[in-house]
Amino acid sequence: MKSIQALELMARKLRIDSLKSTTAAGSGHPTSCMSCAEIMSCLFFSELQPEDEFILSKGHAAPILWAAYAEADHIPKEELETLRRIDSVLEGHPTPKMPLVKIATGSLGQGLSTGVGMALAKGLKNNEGRIYVLLGDGECAEGSVWEAANSAAYYMRNNICAIIDVNRLGQSAPTMHQHDVASYKQKFEAFGWEAIIIDGHSVQEILDAFTHARKSKKPCALIAKTIKGKGVSFLENKEGWHGKPLSREKLEEALKEIGNADITLPSKSRFNKIDYTVVDCETNKYNLGDMVATRDAFGRALVNLGRKNSTVVAIDADVKNSTMTEYFFKEFPDRGFQSFIAEQNMVGMAVGFSAMGFNPFIATFSAFLTRAHDFIRMAQYSMANIKCVGSHAGMSIGPDGPSQMGLEDISMFLSMPKAVVLYPSDAVSAEYLVKEMSKHKGISYLRTTRGKTPVIYKNSERFPIGGLKVVLKNSRDKALVVTAGITLQEALKAYEILKKKNIYIRVIDLYSLQPLDTASLIKNASECKNNVIAVEDHYCNALGSILSSVLHDVCQLCVRDIPRSGKAEELFKKYGIDASTIVKMVEQML
Amino acid sequence: MKSIQALELMARKLRIDSLKSTTAAGSGHPTSCMSCAEIMSCLFFSELQPEDEFILSKGHAAPILWAAYAEADHIPKEELETLRRIDSVLEGHPTPKMPLVKIATGSLGQGLSTGVGMALAKGLKNNEGRIYVLLGDGECAEGSVWEAANSAAYYMRNNICAIIDVNRLGQSAPTMHQHDVASYKQKFEAFGWEAIIIDGHSVQEILDAFTHARKSKKPCALIAKTIKGKGVSFLENKEGWHGKPLSREKLEEALKEIGNADITLPSKSRFNKIDYTVVDCETNKYNLGDMVATRDAFGRALVNLGRKNSTVVAIDADVKNSTMTEYFFKEFPDRGFQSFIAEQNMVGMAVGFSAMGFNPFIATFSAFLTRAHDFIRMAQYSMANIKCVGSHAGMSIGPDGPSQMGLEDISMFLSMPKAVVLYPSDAVSAEYLVKEMSKHKGISYLRTTRGKTPVIYKNSERFPIGGLKVVLKNSRDKALVVTAGITLQEALKAYEILKKKNIYIRVIDLYSLQPLDTASLIKNASECKNNVIAVEDHYCNALGSILSSVLHDVCQLCVRDIPRSGKAEELFKKYGIDASTIVKMVEQML
Repeated sequence: MKSIQALELMARKLRIDSLKSTTAAGSGHPTSCMSCAEIMSCLFFSELQPEDEFILSKGHAAPILWAAYAEADHIPKEELETLRRIDSVLEGHPTPKMPLVKIATGSLGQGLSTGVGMALAKGLKNNEGRIYVLLGDGECAEGSVWEAANSAAYYMRNNICAIIDVNRLGQSAPTMHQHDVASYKQKFEAFGWEAIIIDGHSVQEILDAFTHARKSKKPCALIAKTIKGKGVSFLENKEGWHGKPLSREKLEEALKEIGNADITLPSKSRFNKIDYTVVDCETNKYNLGDMVATRDAFGRALVNLGRKNSTVVAIDADVKNSTMTEYFFKEFPDRGFQSFIAEQNMVGMAVGFSAMGFNPFIATFSAFLTRAHDFIRMAQYSMANIKCVGSHAGMSIGPDGPSQMGLEDISMFLSMPKAVVLYPSDAVSAEYLVKEMSKHKGISYLRTTRGKTPVIYKNSERFPIGGLKVVLKNSRDKALVVTAGITLQEALKAYEILKKKNIYIRVIDLYSLQPLDTASLIKNASECKNNVIAVEDHYCNALGSILSSVLHDVCQLCVRDIPRSGKAEELFKKYGIDASTIVKMVEQML
Repeated sequence: MKSIQALELMARKLRIDSLKSTTAAGSGHPTSCMSCAEIMSCLFFSELQPEDEFILSKGHAAPILWAAYAEADHIPKEELETLRRIDSVLEGHPTPKMPLVKIATGSLGQGLSTGVGMALAKGLKNNEGRIYVLLGDGECAEGSVWEAANSAAYYMRNNICAIIDVNRLGQSAPTMHQHDVASYKQKFEAFGWEAIIIDGHSVQEILDAFTHARKSKKPCALIAKTIKGKGVSFLENKEGWHGKPLSREKLEEALKEIGNADITLPSKSRFNKIDYTVVDCETNKYNLGDMVATRDAFGRALVNLGRKNSTVVAIDADVKNSTMTEYFFKEFPDRGFQSFIAEQNMVGMAVGFSAMGFNPFIATFSAFLTRAHDFIRMAQYSMANIKCVGSHAGMSIGPDGPSQMGLEDISMFLSMPKAVVLYPSDAVSAEYLVKEMSKHKGISYLRTTRGKTPVIYKNSERFPIGGLKVVLKNSRDKALVVTAGITLQEALKAYEILKKKNIYIRVIDLYSLQPLDTASLIKNASECKNNVIAVEDHYCNALGSILSSVLHDVCQLCVRDIPRSGKAEELFKKYGIDASTIVKMVEQML
């Protein structure tokens, strides 16, 4: 019996659970849970089917998610009391440490993008399930919500349903639109959705809306007018209660007011983790000296991967003819997704694909990956398996100017402890590293170069993650130059100049910046009398910085000032990362 | 005489200029200029008044901006041929290297936020001028455009006018909505704007729309249907021409088709740089040992600053009761702006305020500043004067979990060569540093802590940018612990433990991480036998990393794994940044 009354009772129970667990924890957001209690009750005990997915975009309402899991018998009821404890998987905001959670939330405005990714993934799998995303009203101020709304409508996914919990109050003040639910409806409609206004505390209206949404030909948003703190008079619609648990005394008072909630209901919700496998594939063959851009090699490798692996998808942000995902888009139009110029949503969709067992590659200019920093940061907490590719790295792009130059991308990825950071210098290594990325489960980053560089490696070479290549080595080496990507060419030029002066330098291609082959770096540095020069087409806290952390003294050649338009070779010289600067530094050292 | 015909002729001339300069440069985006030639002609030679401001949000159309400047006699015509050269201020995308430019653009979707900031700034100054922002259609996929649209409507600024150049084609493919101009109209209307659809090549329609916009009570968007490459038949509405200059031969062909454009027109447009001054102010007095959160000290200092400086404004993202800008909002409601939960727009607005001579402070959780990474990156190219404050830094926030922990913020700001990065450990230093930030012109970052920490400095102490404090020093010091912010407390605890074992350590409070007092660090390290330990509540490429760059061997205690919910002290211990770990490391070293 899932009568209206039963679902109302369950909502009451979820409120009680949320209040109790946050009081036990001494922190948390009970009032943000109370506004969506009927919605969660209807979702978990009526609407959600085994093949459906649910994302709590308003992650601070985690206590009611844990409560719903407990009431749905996915976890023991007692576990709710461990909320936010260091020994509990019930964290303050949802993370996959709790295995039923696929997407970490808590940075607002991200859930809908991941939901769209999941919805598209289901489309590829011909899977009948639906995606439900519960958002707060406050987070609808994040532009990323509208990037996601755009994508859902563009791909016309009617297997996605957003519920907006319009409880009127943000953290510090009323929201922009307060209870003007018509504003939200108008926005979603303008972004190509069907939108229905409901009373978010009416079980009947919620159930009817879900039934309607299932039949909609468009993605559908339920705009639910709710009361923050609903159910307890001293909390209802009151400012100053965001993120505050009740004291023991206030809790007693609240529980008395809420009253009896003696109900158990079955739930059809299921949350199965989906894993993926990667099949190895061929790489294209190159001749030594061939001039090939690493971005082009990436694009070709991705096609080979796609041929062997139906789980590989590519998402681009209207630069596929620059990142060279366009080869993939041409061969696999069904598995190439366009996020248009919306990098946050691109990453969010990838996280959604990842959660559904896909192997998503995202690509844009390395500079514009900074746009998605918060999404990438959150992806690590989702334990997502996403492969990021940033093209047009560094000053090497030249005349377009600093806005288009990725000069902080490596640093951004290095700031994630588990991210793999790769920067190939030729086509052979680039192709190999794409395969390595595809096998690596987690976040990985490949930095590619716009211009063509000569192939310097034989096709038989291997480039494992965590390795490096000693490109030039001699028993008389007096200094070690460590570099990667485009500046490897500068190091090689410097080698030739110095050789004529009978000065020999060792050159290392540090294609894997994280993880780092520390042992080999220490050994090579020592063999070169610890005269180490780091060279990079990047601002100064990347390659040189990590070398400094493992070696003694490192001379860091990096971009120390804000660059400008100009030819790449002029800029390399002006900002001191070219062959002549390397030569000068080596001579100064010796 | 600014007849329709004259403005049409000027549009033709701007097209010619754009084609010529990009061919001379060998790169650039002529077709993106040609779609907006009539719009630019009408703006610069009819609509713009001396007190108005113009922002080219679609920065890749820089050649037509330079052309308009030249035709308006702001720069010599010959200079156009220097486009994109290393010795020219006419960069590939607009930057203030060209002194008429206030806002660097080129990362799409940012111009409208800066425009809203300028519009609000004009409101504060009772300045009658208007703000014009020219956007591309492609960039309207960026959510940040809608964050800005929200803010303009919320503050009901009718002194801002957006023009959308709907030329149908993105870089790699048609845009999401192609020529469906009604979609853009519907979106802007849903976001509270008035929107007018016009033929973007009809001078009459453009002029009429501008006249209408001046009278509108709302912010107004002109949705201009245009043709990419307009004016040259082999370019018009053709895919594959984005970002490609014409060859010399094709240029001749194009110029022949465009024909005569013999016209000069006066322009009222003016672009005056506005500078600012900062008046010093008092700081609040504290007693040694008082327990005060640095975020609270920041909030109080900001009020004092605001009392003395009418140019100080604060922008928050619905967390003013956490960042403690709420003190400022309460005392100066007219100078406190709410971006709601939209961090990108918050930074964009600050850049706009800065361009109008204001001294804007923005504040949110340090974790959520990553949301605005691309905006902050671009702010440095705008030479903007913005003061960023990130509260709730690090694992010290505890039970809320990793999504709320800023653990990459320092690294993000360190990746900007000119950014000032400050991390105070007590209220006295926090207040002083807020004053220092206000005097510093450029980008600065203050990292604050949620929890209360004891006041350790006398009110008379000074904390200049680029300095450090030796907190504990003894002639018998055997190791040096360098830290900042919350972990200074751990270092002090470690000192006490070690002292009992008759082991003395020196402790440095590195409140200024960039610029760095390298000389003092080297001296102190040397006096402590180069036994250096760096401790930080941050992932591993921040404080420890910059120390490694200037000192020999540094033992880095930082967050090496993904943290979780828990009490701060539990987390500090688990992830190895607490007093006991420092003690262990010192003992291992000696």
